[in-house]
This record gives sequence, structure tokens and C-alpha cells, in this order.
Amino acid sequence: MFRPLSLLIINISKHNVASQIKYSTAILPRLSSEKYNIKRKSFGTINESDINHFRSILSENRVITDESDVLPYNIDWIKNCRGQSKVVLKPKTTDEVSEVLSYCNSKKLAVCPQGGNTGLVGGSVPVFDEIVLNFSLMNKVISLDDISGALVCEAGCVLENLDNYVRQHNLIMPLDLGAKGSCHIGGNVSTNAGGLRLLRYGNLHGSILGLEAVKADGTVIDCLRTLKKDNTGYHLKHLFIGSEGTLGVVTKVAVHCPAVSKAVSLGYFGVNTFEDVLQLYRNAKISLGEILSAFEMADNRAICSTVKNLKLTNPLEDYPFYVLIETSGCDEEHDSEKLNRFLSKEMESGHIIDGTVTSEPAKMRVMATFT
Amino acid sequence: MFRPLSLLIINISKHNVASQIKYSTAILPRLSSEKYNIKRKSFGTINESDINHFRSILSENRVITDESDVLPYNIDWIKNCRGQSKVVLKPKTTDEVSEVLSYCNSKKLAVCPQGGNTGLVGGSVPVFDEIVLNFSLMNKVISLDDISGALVCEAGCVLENLDNYVRQHNLIMPLDLGAKGSCHIGGNVSTNAGGLRLLRYGNLHGSILGLEAVKADGTVIDCLRTLKKDNTGYHLKHLFIGSEGTLGVVTKVAVHCPAVSKAVSLGYFGVNTFEDVLQLYRNAKISLGEILSAFEMADNRAICSTVKNLKLTNPLEDYPFYVLIETSGCDEEHDSEKLNRFLSKEMESGHIIDGTVTSEPAKMRVMATFT
Repeated sequence: MFRPLSLLIINISKHNVASQIKYSTAILPRLSSEKYNIKRKSFGTINESDINHFRSILSENRVITDESDVLPYNIDWIKNCRGQSKVVLKPKTTDEVSEVLSYCNSKKLAVCPQGGNTGLVGGSVPVFDEIVLNFSLMNKVISLDDISGALVCEAGCVLENLDNYVRQHNLIMPLDLGAKGSCHIGGNVSTNAGGLRLLRYGNLHGSILGLEAVKADGTVIDCLRTLKKDNTGYHLKHLFIGSEGTLGVVTKVAVHCPAVSKAVSLGYFGVNTFEDVLQLYRNAKISLGEILSAFEMADNRAICSTVKNLKLTNPLEDYPFYVLIETSGCDEEHDSEKLNRFLSKEMESGHIIDGTVTSEPAKMRVMATFT
Repeated sequence: MFRPLSLLIINISKHNVASQIKYSTAILPRLSSEKYNIKRKSFGTINESDINHFRSILSENRVITDESDVLPYNIDWIKNCRGQSKVVLKPKTTDEVSEVLSYCNSKKLAVCPQGGNTGLVGGSVPVFDEIVLNFSLMNKVISLDDISGALVCEAGCVLENLDNYVRQHNLIMPLDLGAKGSCHIGGNVSTNAGGLRLLRYGNLHGSILGLEAVKADGTVIDCLRTLKKDNTGYHLKHLFIGSEGTLGVVTKVAVHCPAVSKAVSLGYFGVNTFEDVLQLYRNAKISLGEILSAFEMADNRAICSTVKNLKLTNPLEDYPFYVLIETSGCDEEHDSEKLNRFLSKEMESGHIIDGTVTSEPAKMRVMATFT
């Protein structure tokens, strides 16, 4: 699948997972608590008997205490934040998550739930000695109904793995983002990730059919429904979407997966004014309608900087603004025809000064690099 | 806009609004409290000083107490339920709603919020002497951003009026239902209405950008945002979507309106088995993809009963199952081509035994009557 935002969305799909990263102390980021001058609150302090209790719940090898092994879980991906956790727990089941949280709650031990640790704002790493609750071992697909498109899986499933899995059934995940090679679906839900497919498939409040979460006291909240039109009771699941673990830890999710699009086309246009960009957006929604899957703009300065620094050639001449439009549909010929017609019409009306359209993957990648 | 479900969704767009209905006592439904043997809870009882207080908030003519004038607000649309309310209040502003609710709360007076009173399950009418809080005068459009598609309006706006309004800007409401000529958008949100466009545009949790609601104690909850990617704080608005007024009364909503589709085509197919119906649904999602806007099925018995009772002619012969597919797109020729190709392919594979496709509104209406 082609992605048009390679510069705006930092691609971390190939970066190593936490457990494989080795740090030398020379490159360690400053402790977040010092950097941001934060005071630790009066939580409990972990001791040997707590560790032993966790081992009794999870077994020896899923309780990580070795300092160098714990370090990668303390540091965020852009190496801006560093926590001081002493222990990483890797539950495999909802029951284990529940037991761990219930115990921590009774001992007032602070917990930092962590998905793929791909966040860019330091939200996925501890600040002090919070226990890292890592979900990488809760990575099983539970079911896929390829008729309704309902996928049920554990929170630690990596987004890209899920996308690859559902593609075998002519479906795609309703969200896609640069971190897809590492980020967990549980983290996507907890942070209400938007990403590249939002224009087409909307936000997770529309796509998440159900979820299971564990509250701080260990109570399991079961909202794991797969019915698209479910309208029973209060819609509690939405409280967990975007609340970043503060109300509970997401352990399972049910996602509605739309049908995969067979054809992708791309248009790259030079535009004179920001007003024209807005007008183009409005007209694209009308003329391209159901096949419009991305609409991005960049100004001249951003494009020039990209061209210069990445040593690229701009397929268009100098214009104050550039617009990139992606279409996805089930018929390449139809889509190209629509996109070309849109280009002609908007060039005639003057909203577009110059433009190029392609359905060839190689050319699309070149175009996409600019915006 | 053509609607394919004329039989399943009862069309009440032309029924008179409550205030115009006159009842003779002979046709009055039984009191809900007697019919369902419900005991009144220990709420306060309304008296003259309460009425005077409401008049001081709302003015004389927006406090309805005449028994025959109040009666239509006590009876639901299918005349199954009847309440015993003595007063109907018609606020014009959120502040008035807040003042009314705050007062009722302090006096323990029960309240029944009422939108278009088009519900079919008795949820929109009182059971005992609850005060009817009617939103028909809160019917103003506040703003429409025709670039982003964000419509902001008051809760008492009639869905069809909103649809007509946004169509002038090449947009449509993301939901459509039989009651659209009378139902209020506030009621749609409070009941999380699904309707005919759900397959294409998803549910209201995805489409509602923001809302304003008033809690029972009069507190105004302001979640009236119009940003599609808003990700700040807890997403409280979702608690009010589908909670039917039990957590608060919706007073304003912000809705994301998609672009209008220029072309609509319809296919009506005869199918042998339910397995084939499922297979067709799966294949339609792949082959028709982004233009698929409705997929409905009916069995032979349902169609025969319709044909017989409505004195119609079935355009197809006798088959165990029938499938109706609606497509909406921005190019009629492309859509027809896709639909015809789908028909040929599925007839070849045997999932469809016979079928007919049209884009002519008159023929579409005939087809739609069956399913």
C-alpha cells in the first residue's frame, strides 16, 4: 500500500523494537523528571516481594528486571524522555492484566501501560519508577468475519501485521500510520490515532465495534461486541478510545475493516493561492466524491526544502502551493478518468496552474515524496 | 433522494406534527401505566406555582397546559402508548433548557425530553405526569462550513430540513430515515439513529463532531467542537449519543456532512440460497467498493406478501431470495458499468439467477417497493 505522507509522518516501521535496542550511556536522554521538573507523587515503591508476586502471576521470563533490559522501555522513540522504571511486565492474557492491576492498585504501585512505544510525545514511557505493562505478547488475532469485516484481536497486535492479515481476505485496516510496523492496535485505540485513512474511513469512534478493557482495580470491562449497529446501553467503549489508559487498559478490540481498494491514483498540482487550495478541496469532494482518499497541501517553502535536502526533482515548476490528491477505488480506468477530468476542469477554472496524474506505483512514490 | 426501504422503514414524513393532531377519546390508546402496569416513582407533583415559574422563564405561550393541546404530546406515533403529562414546555435557548431543568431538579419534578415524537417504542412520550420538554422551537441552523462539511445547529432542527439546507451546498446529512420529515436531529443523536446511510457513512459516533447538552441539574456540557480530528480530553460527547436523554438533554449538535452523490443506480437480483446472499454481499463490497451505498435482502415470502398486498408486479420471477443493491457515486456511467459488470460476473458464478439494473428514478422506485 502506497503512503503519500512519507515526510510528514515519520516512518518508524523499520526501527527496532524496544527489546532489541542497546543504548550506550553517552546517548541517554535526560531523565524526564529532571528535564521537566516533575515531582513524584506518593505512590508505593516496588520491592522484592512485589517482584516475586508478579513472577507468580506471569512466570519468571515475563518479569524483566535487568537494568539494561528494562532501559529501552524507559526511553521514547525520539529519545526525548527517559523514565526510571525497574520492572517490565509482559502479560499474555486479560486475566493476567487484571491480576497485575488489582495487585498494583492494592499496593498503590504506579503503572505505565505501553504498546509499541512509538508515541512522539513521551506518553508511552514512565517518568519515575512506574511499572511498565507491556502488551507485546498479547498479539493474537481472535477472529475475522470476512463478510461483515469484523476483526477481533488482542491489544498487542502490531497494526501492520493486522493489515497484512485482513488483506488476505480482501479487507484493510481502517487506519494506517507511519508507525504501523511497530505500533499496537491497543495503543492506536487508547490514543485515538488518526492517520492517513481518516479522510476516507473516519475516526476510530466510528470504526471500533467493541473493546475489552481492565480498570485500575482489575475489573474487566467487556464491551467486546462486533455488531456494527449495536445500540444497547451506554456506549462506554468510547470512553476508552483516546483516554490513553487513564480510565483503563485496553486488552482486546473489535475493528470494522473496510474492503480493500484495487486501484490507487495520484494527482500532484501546482496552485496559486491558499483560497484556491480550499476551493480545490471542496471541488475534489464533489467531483471525485467516493474515490477521494487523501488530500494534502504543502507550500512552496516546504517543497523547496524537501527538494533541496532530499536531492529530488520537483515534477512541477515553482508554485506558491502544491496539492497532492490520492484516489482509491475498485476500477483504475474509472478513477483515472475522474482524476484527469478533475484536473482539466480545475485548470480551466484556474484553481490548478499545472498538474500531473499517475497510477504507476513508481511515479506515485516520487510524487509522494514531496508532500 | 431515493430511499430503498419504503416497507421496512415506516415513512412518517407526511404525518402531522403533534400540535396539529386532534384526537377523539374513542381512539385514545390505553394509558401506558395501566397497559404495562408501571408504578409512579416518588417524584414531585406539578402545581400552579411551578407553572407560573415556567411562564416566567419561557413566557405565556410556550407553556402549554390546555388538556387537548397537551394530549398529542402524550401519545406516541403508533398510538400504542399514552402518558398523563399536564404541561408541555417549549424552550428556545440552551439557557432556558438549563433554567427549566435546574428548577425541575430542585423540585424533583420528572421531565420527558421530546424531539419529533417519531419513535416507535414509546420512548418519546411520558408515562405519568412528566413535564414534556419539547424542542421544536430550537430549530435554528447556527453555521455551515461548506469546505469541511461541519454543520452546527440546534437540537430541534428537523432532519429533512437540514438535508435540504446542506444540499444547497453540495452536501448531505450522513443519516437518513423514514421519519426524516418530522424527527429532530437532537432525537437522532439521543437515540443514536442508524438509518439508510449507515452502510456508507457509518454511525453517529463517527459523524457527530460535537454537541452541547444540559444535565438534569441544569449544568451545560459544552462539547460543541467542529474539528474532525479533535483528540483532546475524554470524549464525553459519545456518552450522550444513544443514551436517550438519561444523562442529559442534547441542545446543539455539530455534524460532519459528506459530499452529495450525483448518481444513484439500483440492482435487483433473484438469488437461490442465503449462502449466496452472503457471498454476494462480500463480493459487492469488493467489486462495487466505494460506490456501494445499500445492500438489502428479502426472502420469497416477504416479497410475495408485498406483491400481493400492494398489488404490484415483481420485475423478476419467483426466487427463494431477493437482493437489492444501491450504488451512489459521482459518475452515473461509471457506476452503471460497475453494477452491470457485477451482475454479469455474479450470474456467471451462479450467485445471481436473474437480475435487473437501472438508473432511472421511476424504475428505481418500483424496484424499491419490493424490498
